[in-house]
Amino acid sequence: MSTRNRRPTIRDVAAAAGVSRGTVSRVLNGGKLVSPEARAAVDAAITSTGYVANQHARSLATSRSNSIAFLLTEPQHLLFEDPNFSVLLRGVAEELSGREIPLLLMVAGTPAERRQISRYVAAGHVDGVLLISSHRGNPMLADLLEHDVPVVACGVPLGYEGRVGYVAADDRSGAVTMTRHLLDRGRSRVAMITGPLDTSGGLLRLEGYRETLGERYDENLVVSGDYSRESGRLGMAELLRRRPDLDAVFVASDLMAAGALAALQAAGRSVPDDVAVGGFDDSGVAAAMHPGLTTMRQPFSRISSEMVRLLHEVMEGEEPAGITLPTSLVERDST
Amino acid sequence: MSTRNRRPTIRDVAAAAGVSRGTVSRVLNGGKLVSPEARAAVDAAITSTGYVANQHARSLATSRSNSIAFLLTEPQHLLFEDPNFSVLLRGVAEELSGREIPLLLMVAGTPAERRQISRYVAAGHVDGVLLISSHRGNPMLADLLEHDVPVVACGVPLGYEGRVGYVAADDRSGAVTMTRHLLDRGRSRVAMITGPLDTSGGLLRLEGYRETLGERYDENLVVSGDYSRESGRLGMAELLRRRPDLDAVFVASDLMAAGALAALQAAGRSVPDDVAVGGFDDSGVAAAMHPGLTTMRQPFSRISSEMVRLLHEVMEGEEPAGITLPTSLVERDST
Repeated sequence: MSTRNRRPTIRDVAAAAGVSRGTVSRVLNGGKLVSPEARAAVDAAITSTGYVANQHARSLATSRSNSIAFLLTEPQHLLFEDPNFSVLLRGVAEELSGREIPLLLMVAGTPAERRQISRYVAAGHVDGVLLISSHRGNPMLADLLEHDVPVVACGVPLGYEGRVGYVAADDRSGAVTMTRHLLDRGRSRVAMITGPLDTSGGLLRLEGYRETLGERYDENLVVSGDYSRESGRLGMAELLRRRPDLDAVFVASDLMAAGALAALQAAGRSVPDDVAVGGFDDSGVAAAMHPGLTTMRQPFSRISSEMVRLLHEVMEGEEPAGITLPTSLVERDST
Repeated sequence: MSTRNRRPTIRDVAAAAGVSRGTVSRVLNGGKLVSPEARAAVDAAITSTGYVANQHARSLATSRSNSIAFLLTEPQHLLFEDPNFSVLLRGVAEELSGREIPLLLMVAGTPAERRQISRYVAAGHVDGVLLISSHRGNPMLADLLEHDVPVVACGVPLGYEGRVGYVAADDRSGAVTMTRHLLDRGRSRVAMITGPLDTSGGLLRLEGYRETLGERYDENLVVSGDYSRESGRLGMAELLRRRPDLDAVFVASDLMAAGALAALQAAGRSVPDDVAVGGFDDSGVAAAMHPGLTTMRQPFSRISSEMVRLLHEVMEGEEPAGITLPTSLVERDST
C-alpha cells in the first residue's frame, strides 16, 4: 500500500516497525511499558514513513484538557423537538462516561454561531467533533477539515465521502423494507414524505422507496419535509389535496409522522383503515402515538457507541471509515 | 469603601484614577482609544489598589478563544423534559449572538461528569459559566470558585449568597400571588406540590404559600416533587389519598402540574370544578394543557439577558450582584 498520496498513519508506522498500533501509540505518548528495542524500531519507522503525530491525538492522550463536542448544525428548536437528538446525546454521554472526557454540546444553527464555534474548535479547545445532521455543503465541515480537527459524522457526509468518517443507519434498505411492508398490506397508492434532500438520510430513504415501487413510482405522490412535526402535517395535507385516493404513506421520520397523523385526523381519514402510515426512527414518540406507529428502528445506541469508537480511531491517526448499521421493522397499529 | 477584605475590582481602579470603568477596561485590554494621561493615571491606580486583572476577563477581551458555558447540573433527561431549560438556552443564545462568543452547553448530571467538566473549565477553556439549577451544596460551585472562574447562577445559589451573582424570579412573591388567587376563588383547602427543597425556588415558593395561609397552613396538604412530570403525578395521587377533600392545589412548576392534572383525571376529579390547579413558569406547556393552566409567568427572556449581562460584569472584575425579577399571574381555565 503506497503512502505517497496521503498522510502516513499510525498503521503505517506500525507496519514499518513490525509492532502493533498500540505499541506505536505508547511510544508517541511517552513510552511507558515499551521495550527499548520496540522504541528504537518505532522511532526508525517514524522517520522512514514521514509520520507526523496528530496534535489533537497527542492532546487527547497527554493533556488533561481534552474534550469531545456533540455538534448540531440545525436550528436550536430541533434539538428539543426531535427526540432523535436527545437519544443520540444520551448514548454518547454514556459511552464517554467511563473515559474521563467531558462532552460539550454545541448548536450551530446560524452562520454567526457556525463562525464562532469553528473558531473555538480551531483554537484547540476541542479534540474531536461528532457532527450530527450534516447537510450537503455544510460549511463547518470544510472549516473543521481545514484545521485538521478529527470529525465523525452521523449519516453519510455528502460531498466529503472518503474524507470524513461516518456512522449511519442503512437508510436505503430501511426504506425498501417499509415500502414493501406497505405494499404487502395490500396498499397500491403509497405516498412518501421525504426528509431534506440535501442530507444522505433524506436522499437514501427516497431512493429505497423509489426503487421498491419501480414503474409504479409517481412523483405526484412525493413531497419533502425538513424532519419537523409541522412539515409532516403540511406535507400530508398537500398529498391529500393532490391525491385524495392515496391509501398509504411512508414518512421519513417519526416526528414528521406525528404531524402527518394530525393532518389525516383533521381530514377525517382513519388510520390504518383509510390510510396506512409508516415512519422511520422508533425514537420514543412512535409508541406514544394513537394509533401506535409502525416504523423502522434505527439502532441509536449502537450508532452512538460506534461514533465514539470511530472518532477515537481518527484521533489516533487512522484513516476514516464508513460504518452502516441495519434497521429493523417494528410493527404497531398504524399499518 | 475599604478594599481591605476583598479583591480590588475595576471599579476601585477607576475611582482611584478618576476615570470611567470603560477606560480602565480599555487600558487593560491594550490601550486602544486611551489618552496617554488616562493610561498613566490607570497604571498608577492599578499599583496603588493592588488590582490584579482577572485572567478570564483578559482572555475574553483579548483572545479569540473565549466562550461561555450553559451548565446544567441535572440528569440529562430533564434538559429535554422540562421546557424551561430550552427557553433559557434560547434566550442566552440570542443574547450572545451579536457578541461573537460561542456558547457551550454542558450537562453534569453525574459525579463523573461534574469532575470532568470542572477540570475542563479549570484548564481555561471556558471564560464564564451560567449555572442553571443549583442545588444546595452543589460541588461544582465550590470547584468553579476555587479556580476563580466567573459564575452567575440562575436562582439564589444556596450557601453561596454574596459570593456568586444570580438572577432569579421573585419566587416567594409569585407563590403569594398564586396562593391568594386560589383563596380568592373561594377555595379553602389549598394543597401544594413543592419543588426540590434544596433549591431556592423550591424553598421560596413553599415559604410564599405558607406565609399566605398563615394559621390555615397544614403540613398534611404539602408534598414535594423534583420538577419532573412524574413527581407531579405521584404527588397529586398522594395528596388525594391523604386529603380527599382538597379543593385546590398550587404546583411549583408547570411540568409537575401536567402530571398533577393527569392524576386528577385518573381519580375522576374535574378541573377546576372539583379541584382548582395553579402552576408556576408559563413555559409553553401551560397553554397547551386541557384545561389551559393558570400559572405564574417567569420572565425567562429577561432572566437570560440579565444573566449574560451580569456574567460580563463579573468577568470584568465587578463584585457579584443578585437580581430578582417579578413574576405575573396568567389566568386560564384551571382555576
